[in-house]
Amino acid sequence: MDEINPIRDRLIGLCLEEDLGFGDVTTELIIDPSTLGKGVLLAREPLVLAGLPVFKRVFRALCPEMAFEDYAADGDLVPAEKNICLLEGALSSMLKAERTALNFLQRMSGIATLTRQYVEKVRPYHVRILDTRKTAPGLRWFDKYAVRMGGGFNHRFGLSDGILIKDNHIAAAGSIGRAVERVRMKAPHTLKIEVEVEDLAGTEEALRAGADAVLLDNMSPAQIEEAVRLLKGKVLIEASGGITLETVEETAKAGVDLISVGALTHSPRAVDLSLEIVQGNFSP
Amino acid sequence: MDEINPIRDRLIGLCLEEDLGFGDVTTELIIDPSTLGKGVLLAREPLVLAGLPVFKRVFRALCPEMAFEDYAADGDLVPAEKNICLLEGALSSMLKAERTALNFLQRMSGIATLTRQYVEKVRPYHVRILDTRKTAPGLRWFDKYAVRMGGGFNHRFGLSDGILIKDNHIAAAGSIGRAVERVRMKAPHTLKIEVEVEDLAGTEEALRAGADAVLLDNMSPAQIEEAVRLLKGKVLIEASGGITLETVEETAKAGVDLISVGALTHSPRAVDLSLEIVQGNFSP
Amino acid sequence: MDEINPIRDRLIGLCLEEDLGFGDVTTELIIDPSTLGKGVLLAREPLVLAGLPVFKRVFRALCPEMAFEDYAADGDLVPAEKNICLLEGALSSMLKAERTALNFLQRMSGIATLTRQYVEKVRPYHVRILDTRKTAPGLRWFDKYAVRMGGGFNHRFGLSDGILIKDNHIAAAGSIGRAVERVRMKAPHTLKIEVEVEDLAGTEEALRAGADAVLLDNMSPAQIEEAVRLLKGKVLIEASGGITLETVEETAKAGVDLISVGALTHSPRAVDLSLEIVQGNFSP
Amino acid sequence: MDEINPIRDRLIGLCLEEDLGFGDVTTELIIDPSTLGKGVLLAREPLVLAGLPVFKRVFRALCPEMAFEDYAADGDLVPAEKNICLLEGALSSMLKAERTALNFLQRMSGIATLTRQYVEKVRPYHVRILDTRKTAPGLRWFDKYAVRMGGGFNHRFGLSDGILIKDNHIAAAGSIGRAVERVRMKAPHTLKIEVEVEDLAGTEEALRAGADAVLLDNMSPAQIEEAVRLLKGKVLIEASGGITLETVEETAKAGVDLISVGALTHSPRAVDLSLEIVQGNFSP
Amino acid sequence: MDEINPIRDRLIGLCLEEDLGFGDVTTELIIDPSTLGKGVLLAREPLVLAGLPVFKRVFRALCPEMAFEDYAADGDLVPAEKNICLLEGALSSMLKAERTALNFLQRMSGIATLTRQYVEKVRPYHVRILDTRKTAPGLRWFDKYAVRMGGGFNHRFGLSDGILIKDNHIAAAGSIGRAVERVRMKAPHTLKIEVEVEDLAGTEEALRAGADAVLLDNMSPAQIEEAVRLLKGKVLIEASGGITLETVEETAKAGVDLISVGALTHSPRAVDLSLEIVQGNFSP
Amino acid sequence: MDEINPIRDRLIGLCLEEDLGFGDVTTELIIDPSTLGKGVLLAREPLVLAGLPVFKRVFRALCPEMAFEDYAADGDLVPAEKNICLLEGALSSMLKAERTALNFLQRMSGIATLTRQYVEKVRPYHVRILDTRKTAPGLRWFDKYAVRMGGGFNHRFGLSDGILIKDNHIAAAGSIGRAVERVRMKAPHTLKIEVEVEDLAGTEEALRAGADAVLLDNMSPAQIEEAVRLLKGKVLIEASGGITLETVEETAKAGVDLISVGALTHSPRAVDLSLEIVQGNFSP
Repeated sequence: MDEINPIRDRLIGLCLEEDLGFGDVTTELIIDPSTLGKGVLLAREPLVLAGLPVFKRVFRALCPEMAFEDYAADGDLVPAEKNICLLEGALSSMLKAERTALNFLQRMSGIATLTRQYVEKVRPYHVRILDTRKTAPGLRWFDKYAVRMGGGFNHRFGLSDGILIKDNHIAAAGSIGRAVERVRMKAPHTLKIEVEVEDLAGTEEALRAGADAVLLDNMSPAQIEEAVRLLKGKVLIEASGGITLETVEETAKAGVDLISVGALTHSPRAVDLSLEIVQGNFSP
Repeated sequence: MDEINPIRDRLIGLCLEEDLGFGDVTTELIIDPSTLGKGVLLAREPLVLAGLPVFKRVFRALCPEMAFEDYAADGDLVPAEKNICLLEGALSSMLKAERTALNFLQRMSGIATLTRQYVEKVRPYHVRILDTRKTAPGLRWFDKYAVRMGGGFNHRFGLSDGILIKDNHIAAAGSIGRAVERVRMKAPHTLKIEVEVEDLAGTEEALRAGADAVLLDNMSPAQIEEAVRLLKGKVLIEASGGITLETVEETAKAGVDLISVGALTHSPRAVDLSLEIVQGNFSP
Repeated sequence: MDEINPIRDRLIGLCLEEDLGFGDVTTELIIDPSTLGKGVLLAREPLVLAGLPVFKRVFRALCPEMAFEDYAADGDLVPAEKNICLLEGALSSMLKAERTALNFLQRMSGIATLTRQYVEKVRPYHVRILDTRKTAPGLRWFDKYAVRMGGGFNHRFGLSDGILIKDNHIAAAGSIGRAVERVRMKAPHTLKIEVEVEDLAGTEEALRAGADAVLLDNMSPAQIEEAVRLLKGKVLIEASGGITLETVEETAKAGVDLISVGALTHSPRAVDLSLEIVQGNFSP
Repeated sequence: MDEINPIRDRLIGLCLEEDLGFGDVTTELIIDPSTLGKGVLLAREPLVLAGLPVFKRVFRALCPEMAFEDYAADGDLVPAEKNICLLEGALSSMLKAERTALNFLQRMSGIATLTRQYVEKVRPYHVRILDTRKTAPGLRWFDKYAVRMGGGFNHRFGLSDGILIKDNHIAAAGSIGRAVERVRMKAPHTLKIEVEVEDLAGTEEALRAGADAVLLDNMSPAQIEEAVRLLKGKVLIEASGGITLETVEETAKAGVDLISVGALTHSPRAVDLSLEIVQGNFSP
Repeated sequence: MDEINPIRDRLIGLCLEEDLGFGDVTTELIIDPSTLGKGVLLAREPLVLAGLPVFKRVFRALCPEMAFEDYAADGDLVPAEKNICLLEGALSSMLKAERTALNFLQRMSGIATLTRQYVEKVRPYHVRILDTRKTAPGLRWFDKYAVRMGGGFNHRFGLSDGILIKDNHIAAAGSIGRAVERVRMKAPHTLKIEVEVEDLAGTEEALRAGADAVLLDNMSPAQIEEAVRLLKGKVLIEASGGITLETVEETAKAGVDLISVGALTHSPRAVDLSLEIVQGNFSP
Repeated sequence: MDEINPIRDRLIGLCLEEDLGFGDVTTELIIDPSTLGKGVLLAREPLVLAGLPVFKRVFRALCPEMAFEDYAADGDLVPAEKNICLLEGALSSMLKAERTALNFLQRMSGIATLTRQYVEKVRPYHVRILDTRKTAPGLRWFDKYAVRMGGGFNHRFGLSDGILIKDNHIAAAGSIGRAVERVRMKAPHTLKIEVEVEDLAGTEEALRAGADAVLLDNMSPAQIEEAVRLLKGKVLIEASGGITLETVEETAKAGVDLISVGALTHSPRAVDLSLEIVQGNFSP
């Protein structure tokens, strides 16, 4: 029933091979391949779930007949000690895939849980919490999916699906105006043009240049407020730069449309999830 | 001069492609490919450096002629605002590789820095801080390398290069004794046999069974002390389970040989590093 | 000196292996690997050149020491019988890579040449000629690069870097308004929202819904003119659907901003290019 | 039921990933993954069908449960407006795979249709229409399969499964005789030896050297006739070089056994095929 | 029902593609894809079977519906002319996969059969017959699995899952003691430390240095006996170096724990196995 | 200077990764990466060398600066104790690559040496010794290259570059005549048609059907002689089936053109070659 996701599934295969190597020497010497097992995936702390289809796919990659029963879905706020999913299938596959499956799920749910905290902080404001490209190398799809499950929004996935003119681009072009012009002349019409600025002069220049969005990078609250006054309703306003759970509300209050937070994906804490396995040959 | 590391370099290539996609639409429209640039990699906070050869490899993957001058090496404790490395080469390659290179370096140095904190806490004791298999999927080589740079030690890399008999293996075999026996009969003689136990009864049984190492999982300080009395000098003693910077010293004091800490790799905080780029066509 | 392009170079490698298989049985039996050769790449008809770096890369993939001297560059209009590039290196590599290199170059220059014809037809108008996703499977990067060399512009590269709401999306959402709303609520802010419409009612609805661009699909010249009256200056206007070299000017005249032409990449004619090879051991 | 074709299916996977990237941002925001759809593949012009199993495989790669009902088969001459195939399955998969599936099918059917035109022109003669290695890079299997469906025949697939001695080989060996000799001494006995010649002197020399086949390259009708007189019944005679639909009959009439036409695969026109999709949750 | 083995199955896919290339030109021209076939796998000489799941997987890779009935299992001693397995499925897939499947099975069973001969020679002694890293490149998993099926044991799989300090390591460190010390300081605690020595002086030094195992390389029977006297019961003792079926018992008698034999995997004789195929459309 | 061989080099990379895994734990803990080493490749028994460029490529894959000096070339008959090649470069790379490099070279030279023995046996006769598709899975290029170095000839590389009609094809077609006819109607004209027969009736039928080559499978010397009388000078005659060093001359004497020997590649004995390494920092 599940739709195949080629990029996701190729990466899952690579990660399984990373852990399995030539085989699970312990399990292969002890567990009979025909022994069945049952497992329960359990939240050990309150969390926002993200990655359950990934978790299941890891097991299915070793044992296509593995059966699952879900008690929660991605995006759900799951309380501590709640059962999330029941697994039934070959015990040896279960043990071999367990760590890889949990590594995905704990990171992804960690990202979603952290994202949700930011989202809750700014709920009263009309603002999006965004991720960045500061993801774990190789895991961008997974990290960005988790941000969405936490209620956040995705910034561009990579360098080819979004335009962001930064200081070095501006220096190379000579000015913000020239940089925007050069991009507008050639870039696909499907992409908006966003300019990163560091002060009000840059903000004004970006507006004049016809940017579709302006990223206020590491500006003070006062500067941000002033920039919002200039830009509001004319272009999208994004703020970024060291924004924390403590400071995010102040930034939101200033009226920006978007707040991007690198920490969502570069420093998430893995949430505590465990897989309790019971073995035995159940009647099918 | 650098030795090629096939597994590392293949993964670096995949991660670069992840970010680059069909190309860097911003940079390709603004930066002339013949423009040269200089960059300085800078620590923004005190950190233990890990991943500098990886960082450099990312740039070299796009621009084989990129030149580097190092002011620090992996494993060094680098103070805030110190220059770590100078880069010189094609500006466009520098901009395209920057984020991927930093994503590797910030995660790896974050792991090394966190590891060093644990290592410092237990310096008076004769004990190793170990990593686990709780790494970011696909990044095990990088994560475990960073632990070593932080002064920690590696547990097994994956399921095929170490034997760890866990509760489900014991249940399947019927007893610790039978599980160890089954493994000893068949396992490569190059691998030690480690048994994970949860209480003193298990500890004694593992010792009797002839385990080479015993992993005390989630045991109380009092239990650990008693287990150490039983095992010390006979087998390697590892403690694990929710050990934090606050509790690690107490565990070390109890006399275990090894303390494994999942958080080193499942929840590191990315350290703050930046790449300051200056452009211009320098004389070669 | 050339920047590495990972996606391009991986595909070039695959295509070379496709032709080479276990080896070039003819060449390996006749040509001594130390024999050198010189080759001249020659235009056999007037063409717009596209793919010269790809052409060279194919040879370099077999013989890294192959040397080149260029007499033309991508994007140039090259007259018949003009020399484009001189090659010098191992004769056997030259013969093995020749067909693959020419297959790339003839297709790419064919696309660029055809694109240039469309571009010339609409030069008096303020309009872009666009490609589509109707490329040869696996060759999208190459096909779209060639369009740019011909003076055309790229539409989205794939499904993940542009939003285009089509009839089936609209039917699923219930209306254009609801489809646009659903996308706007969740899509990355870096992407514009384009809606494909088939009549004036749809055009009006897309405008009301706040689309950033409207694609007039298969509409008559009269309908297009009316749609332009509605949309001009408010949103980007794209026309598509069976537009040919005969009809493109009429469409441009109607005032649209963008004209997308599937034929640029789904039915280009390979241009006539040949590689004349002379052999001998030249002094290095 | 279908036999797996490893080379074909690996390429299909690559091509799908090319278009999908990180996902179909439009479809994933609008279409519920559980929504079913029905699609009808429709000929928009008369065509020779080629690639229907490829077309279906693309959809199956995303949705293994996709069901099909065929009304035509590869090699059939399909009139305009005829239904070719009915699809039923997940609507989102259908929309994601549609473009890639059609890109394959339109190119392949275009090649088959063009090939059939050549085949029809020479039907009265005992001659084969052959393809060449002038295929789209990466698509050789697909292009050559399509030629067969059009009634044409395949020349060698690549450099390793056929021997063709060309001018540069002859120059390196010193003469046709020496080149043939060198190849005959070492080449697998399973391969015939074909020699490309440009005039009657070469033709005679190839015959004397014991070639199994002679390729008359770019020779005039008069020369071809004379060459045929020399060779007929002794070796296979192939003609090539700029042969068009206008000239192919004249060449056939001259009595050659084989006519190879690069244009079949380097410059096919994509035929007009469309997929009409209807959505809704049908009863299974 | 079979567990997926990612590393094994990826290699099987590569090997099938190696043989199939662009397709089986003979079979595809003669056999209708809907024709069914039955095959019997037959031992042509007495052998120890190894690789039956691999053999079956090769067929399943082309025809997932292929059905099997087993009359023997890996590790069984199979007499000449005994049926091992019955296959039923698409005849064309059977013919295409046959050679690759047999190539795996004949090599693997050859290794198992040879290993069993060594094992039988030393049955009275408490000693293990070990393999080495002298495997066919790319086939290590297969070769080492076959050794186990023959009753042998695996030495380390590769350079990362076992420590073996050899002469060059010792020379670089300065002495055995220093080499062992350097390794013990840093190596994962899960790995034993084995030292290769060439004489009694080295043997003593390795013992003093605290090695867990000592590999007596190319030592004379007399030297081995003396070394055993020194080491027995203190460390594991491995002998290696040109040990043959003629000399293995003498080495075993000397009291070593482990005998490693490179010939098991670098020079096995393929056993004679054949697949007898009968065709026809059986009732399912 | 070396020509890149994409298929060979990709496989070499895979095989190196197989042995290296996460790294050479012994070498990385003991050898400083800047230490240089010198190595001498030495024949330990008389052998026909095959695979020296492969051997060197393995080292170069880890250390591109590794330097070599050759004292022998592929195809040479090398006496025992002769130096074959001198290596100089990073010691750690040398130790990491050594086993993989030798595994290739010992197998390949073993095949070449065995082949040469067959070739010598039939030197007085005008007959080729051929290999088969009974190669180690994944190593076909290497195995068949080694056969050529031994003076043998290659049969088809795989199923797509040669036509061999076997018993099952004949049964499916109904008769030899019909099978040949079906193939001739459609197969590429570049391939000869070979038919495998088991008796004289089949031999005659194959001749009548117009086969280009006839493979006499497992026929008695008397049968072979009779078949030769029928076929000689009309078609190529190949004999196969359990031919050994003892029987090959008798088969050759019977007058066949080709003798294929599976044992060349399915059961070669690895020849004894060693790499003696000396370390130290030599002046460059």
